[in-house]
Amino acid sequence: MNCERKVILYIAMSLDGYIATQDNGLDFLSRVEEEGQDYSYSDFVNTVDTVIVGRKSYEKVLSMGLEYPHLDKDLYIITRTPRSAVGSAKYYTGNLKELVLGLKSQQGKSIYVDGGAEIVNEMLMESLIDELYISIIPVLLGDGISLFHGNRPEMVLKLVSAKTYNKGLVQLHYVKA
Amino acid sequence: MNCERKVILYIAMSLDGYIATQDNGLDFLSRVEEEGQDYSYSDFVNTVDTVIVGRKSYEKVLSMGLEYPHLDKDLYIITRTPRSAVGSAKYYTGNLKELVLGLKSQQGKSIYVDGGAEIVNEMLMESLIDELYISIIPVLLGDGISLFHGNRPEMVLKLVSAKTYNKGLVQLHYVKA
Repeated sequence: MNCERKVILYIAMSLDGYIATQDNGLDFLSRVEEEGQDYSYSDFVNTVDTVIVGRKSYEKVLSMGLEYPHLDKDLYIITRTPRSAVGSAKYYTGNLKELVLGLKSQQGKSIYVDGGAEIVNEMLMESLIDELYISIIPVLLGDGISLFHGNRPEMVLKLVSAKTYNKGLVQLHYVKA
Repeated sequence: MNCERKVILYIAMSLDGYIATQDNGLDFLSRVEEEGQDYSYSDFVNTVDTVIVGRKSYEKVLSMGLEYPHLDKDLYIITRTPRSAVGSAKYYTGNLKELVLGLKSQQGKSIYVDGGAEIVNEMLMESLIDELYISIIPVLLGDGISLFHGNRPEMVLKLVSAKTYNKGLVQLHYVKA
């Protein structure tokens, strides 16, 4: 049982639960930027070989003039509109639960849920997330795109660790209890 | 300047930002109950001599068959409906900002904001809160009464500490940056 691949959310939010401003702004993340400090992100990424990301979050990265960072992984971009695969990136229009259960029935490393909120909530609705790394940025944004929407089932968590960093970021790590 | 009384929010929420279920249920708090562990609450209460609480939150305590715990303090119950004072408890129907600025112009210990969400958001809207102690309970409630509403101004925070407890509660302490 413990050999089963884990589905892991790794994401940052403001203390008031926003992952971006209403206009998709991410400037608040720059508050915690620090030379040589990646908040264990590369260590985390080394534990995964599969990435699930929403189409809008994927395109947000491209719109910033960046290459999407996980093209070396088994990458699923969740969308409602069928599109052709681009390199290793597969557009997926099917049922998210079937995708995740299919992936978990295969051997492999962990599965990284890279957002955005729509995908995260759909996965929480189906109890498909096993672990969460939530980095809390020391700001109340006041408004924006909420990480958690309502009308989901309760999920009891077990705290694994809470790490405090220089710039005031607190990284909370939980597993499903 | 540093002698000015501080207005402090001390509250618990689920990881998804709820302070109660939709029907005002607080059962999730029992997940972190532990004999002899008050999460520094009594130490905190010793630093305050004034309490501001919303009428609904005040009555919630009474509805649980409890006496409101801060009757020994200078207590303001915020309401829209004028009512007579009961002992030291004063019902306050005036402007919240005027109340807080008036209290801050007087000598005294810190001022404790004891909720609920309506009062907290009104105070954040007017930038009246100086410090926050937010205890994160290890559960995703899925739905409920959100601590933070939208449409507030941004508030940059400085992390003072993040304390981890046996039952998985993480207590975050921030001051206005």
